Amino acid sequence: MAGREFEFIHRHLGIFGAGSQVRLGVGDDGAVLALPPNSELVVSSDTIVEGTHFPKLTLPEYVATRAVGAAASDLAAMAADPLAMTLALTLPEPDELWLHSFSQGLGRCVQSLSLPLVGGDLTRGPLSVTVTVMGSVPTGCALQRAGAKPGDRLCVTHTLGDAAAGLALIMGELQGETEIPLEDEAFLEARFYQPTARLEWVPWLRQHAHSAIDISDGLLVDVAHMAEASGCACTIDSSALPLSPAVARLALESRLDYALAGGDDYELAVAVPSGVALPVGLIQVGEFHEGSGVQCDYSPTKIAGFDHFGT
Amino acid sequence: MAGREFEFIHRHLGIFGAGSQVRLGVGDDGAVLALPPNSELVVSSDTIVEGTHFPKLTLPEYVATRAVGAAASDLAAMAADPLAMTLALTLPEPDELWLHSFSQGLGRCVQSLSLPLVGGDLTRGPLSVTVTVMGSVPTGCALQRAGAKPGDRLCVTHTLGDAAAGLALIMGELQGETEIPLEDEAFLEARFYQPTARLEWVPWLRQHAHSAIDISDGLLVDVAHMAEASGCACTIDSSALPLSPAVARLALESRLDYALAGGDDYELAVAVPSGVALPVGLIQVGEFHEGSGVQCDYSPTKIAGFDHFGT
Repeated sequence: MAGREFEFIHRHLGIFGAGSQVRLGVGDDGAVLALPPNSELVVSSDTIVEGTHFPKLTLPEYVATRAVGAAASDLAAMAADPLAMTLALTLPEPDELWLHSFSQGLGRCVQSLSLPLVGGDLTRGPLSVTVTVMGSVPTGCALQRAGAKPGDRLCVTHTLGDAAAGLALIMGELQGETEIPLEDEAFLEARFYQPTARLEWVPWLRQHAHSAIDISDGLLVDVAHMAEASGCACTIDSSALPLSPAVARLALESRLDYALAGGDDYELAVAVPSGVALPVGLIQVGEFHEGSGVQCDYSPTKIAGFDHFGT
Repeated sequence: MAGREFEFIHRHLGIFGAGSQVRLGVGDDGAVLALPPNSELVVSSDTIVEGTHFPKLTLPEYVATRAVGAAASDLAAMAADPLAMTLALTLPEPDELWLHSFSQGLGRCVQSLSLPLVGGDLTRGPLSVTVTVMGSVPTGCALQRAGAKPGDRLCVTHTLGDAAAGLALIMGELQGETEIPLEDEAFLEARFYQPTARLEWVPWLRQHAHSAIDISDGLLVDVAHMAEASGCACTIDSSALPLSPAVARLALESRLDYALAGGDDYELAVAVPSGVALPVGLIQVGEFHEGSGVQCDYSPTKIAGFDHFGT
């Protein structure tokens, strides 16, 4: 890492590196972290690329919140407590203003997620961000996609389809929807640009859930991963899908398309054993049973789960 | 991660995920790793971008070896044992042939560095690779840039300048050098495309060294980081710089320029206390003393340390 680059990272990103488990933060060849006793490390890397995952001219602070929120969501899905993250930022050219705005969004994520930034790499190239999140779980307690059992309820942590509707709105593709209130626009766009990693569910998940996944590619696609990994089937009830007022105001077909097949919500899908009382905030949308595959009484027509290499 | 992408990663990259400390590899929301008892986690992320860090049309297997070698080198510099890595690959379009060649290089790295691949993200966009390496050190034993003391010898682990000369050769910029033997070409290019992370030095470093850094931006630049972090000065003797036969055959000025200011070697610069016998393979090139800054009896003219955002 050369002189000027080094300065950039220190000035803009180095202030976010403090944490009780950080022994050495940004500025050396590597960071040094202490894990809690009797715990295992959970790690996941996610990249977002301009033009693929977010539109050109996205506000830099939203590039940060989108990148970190999506990555941190994987920690929640594994029932891991946040430990730290590294961030590799590729920018077309050095841009103090851009970095300033980016670091505003980053700072909010570091604070709200308790996820200190302990390593950075700043390179020149087409705009992209790779975030690697690290977390810890008590040994043997990581929640996997496998583990759902027939009889388990399929639950989600919040309303679905908001982010996909937000992206459609941003891209000018909300066709047939004539009047969308300004407050709905703001809400939907925020759900796309500022996904909330559901780390508040980690203690409950660790104690009660059989399995979890974060919904990045759409409920149907991601629950299919759970069902396959768990060796069972799942039935989803479209009338049970929790919809925000903003999505509920869309046409019937659109709203179900977004809720079932829209990606980028980063809510959790959770398999909850039948004997466990559902806590407030966890919404049942289906049930696992013997067999394979995912069934639903509605088939999305307009959008498919987000597939970067899809057609 | 959607269906087809998922398949790609599994088929091409998922085979590299086994390791004694890997509890859960590629294929879930995150990987789960066990650290040895009484150890700390070391982590570092590095990105390489086509056109910035490696030329267009670089063989895919070299993209892999360059990316992983450079990242793993940070573990060596911290005196950490390799644990695992994640790899975020951004490709303009799905390309089976490209991925096959890439995975050849990746597989060699996984094997030779004992660094299982436990997480992957494959996205569509301009070609770049971000590798996050994780390692472990006994608690409190991570080697830092700070720690060199007046009287320490500055040593390096191998010949210097090879990678920079190799890159110049690849770019057709080895001007004034008329006849370069074919075997030299192959050697220099390999030093650029396939950097060797000096993990074999980790046990010795942990026992004896005061400080270390990996030479990514050129000896002068990187030793300046060490000296500054350590609060002392360093004098480098240009006549002591270890040169490969291929670099030694270049013109006098070129060879010193490459050895002092050429980046991408990923050898280690190490501060060795005066009372410690130098083992075979560690070459003294200078000495730390009271003061600040780096002095050398030769000032490079042609190339500066690699600065992604430099002019």
